[in-house]
Amino acid sequence: MKTIAFLLYPGLTPLDLIGPLQVLSSLRQADPSFEAAVVAETLEPVPTDAVVSLGADRTFEEVPAPYALVVPGGQAGTLRALTNERLLEYVRSASAQATVTASVCTGALILGAAGLLKGREATTHWSFLEALREFGATPVKRRWVDEGEVLTAAGVSAGIDMALHLAARFSSQDVAKILQFGVEYDPEPPFGPLDWAAAPRELFTGLAATWVQEALAEAPELQKRLAARV
Amino acid sequence: MKTIAFLLYPGLTPLDLIGPLQVLSSLRQADPSFEAAVVAETLEPVPTDAVVSLGADRTFEEVPAPYALVVPGGQAGTLRALTNERLLEYVRSASAQATVTASVCTGALILGAAGLLKGREATTHWSFLEALREFGATPVKRRWVDEGEVLTAAGVSAGIDMALHLAARFSSQDVAKILQFGVEYDPEPPFGPLDWAAAPRELFTGLAATWVQEALAEAPELQKRLAARV
Repeated sequence: MKTIAFLLYPGLTPLDLIGPLQVLSSLRQADPSFEAAVVAETLEPVPTDAVVSLGADRTFEEVPAPYALVVPGGQAGTLRALTNERLLEYVRSASAQATVTASVCTGALILGAAGLLKGREATTHWSFLEALREFGATPVKRRWVDEGEVLTAAGVSAGIDMALHLAARFSSQDVAKILQFGVEYDPEPPFGPLDWAAAPRELFTGLAATWVQEALAEAPELQKRLAARV
Repeated sequence: MKTIAFLLYPGLTPLDLIGPLQVLSSLRQADPSFEAAVVAETLEPVPTDAVVSLGADRTFEEVPAPYALVVPGGQAGTLRALTNERLLEYVRSASAQATVTASVCTGALILGAAGLLKGREATTHWSFLEALREFGATPVKRRWVDEGEVLTAAGVSAGIDMALHLAARFSSQDVAKILQFGVEYDPEPPFGPLDWAAAPRELFTGLAATWVQEALAEAPELQKRLAARV
């Protein structure tokens, strides 16, 4: 069985996990050799940055060698995860076994903290792009960056696009298109795509700086390095 | 406090709920008179159609009069909800108080079963469009259909587009655009938008028919009516 494992940890942004999970959990219907799993330290419900808790179906110990690992991001919760050695150790050991380790949004910072981004091009939520340099990566502003064993996606909703790309990689473009019909992904943002010239940079830089201060108070060295990059 | 309530029930498609929740839970940062809540019969974790459970933060009793109600859809779990009188009673009583009752995907069938779609235009997941007629609605194939007090969105991912539309309606287009930057919703489906001429209709019709058979075995009259429409 090829297990696509989605990493769950406290405080993450639930759409980072649920977007690609919804797409890839249906891959099983096209190819029963695949399964999706949501893995966490324990099976207790985990709070997120929205008013909903998520519950995993497996522990780290139960999925030591996934076929693929998907690491979602978030705000302060993700920054706190950068100092969670138990979680980083799982990311390191699972990714050493996996065909691909993928991140969504600031999940890329977790890959960085686990040492997986050194010398690679990578992307993340637009407000944290420069922070990737602290982990030896070259930031690239793209919807996703596929470096083979490591794949990073842009912020939050980019996990859906990335998952369709992964479905084609794991199976075929025809299967990916069926999954796209399943989630009826035919986007119509009511005010069009993002107008990057009008990005609210100051607002998001301020939020990012606050999260770095709050979440990394007990890791002053990392806090200082990231604070210089947001 | 204006509460935007998201209905949680067993077996739903988690992206139907999490997509719009992720967008609208940040509305609070722009306008603190808004809050998001996930409401369910109990606070116990609820299984979904993916390998993740979701936990509500409030019970039906705690949110009797939301400002807005959002009803997610799903597969067999949503069809089973059509015969859950406790849930339908909550949808009826909450929507009678709310400025708008919105659905994502087959959540429209729940609005229909609650009697909210009579004489209205509405949409749902493309594979269940004709089923809306059984509830007195006129099916319309659009990303979302805003009828004022009732708003219906197309399948699964359409909840994100709908939520941005609602954010502009509740607050302003400028605020909606900031929320769009938050979730970095700048879609790039790797194989382009859906090619409706190539829709896998037989496959999805077959799945829909199976869910109707399975989920409504104890409601043969409704089962027969919906089976004729999928």
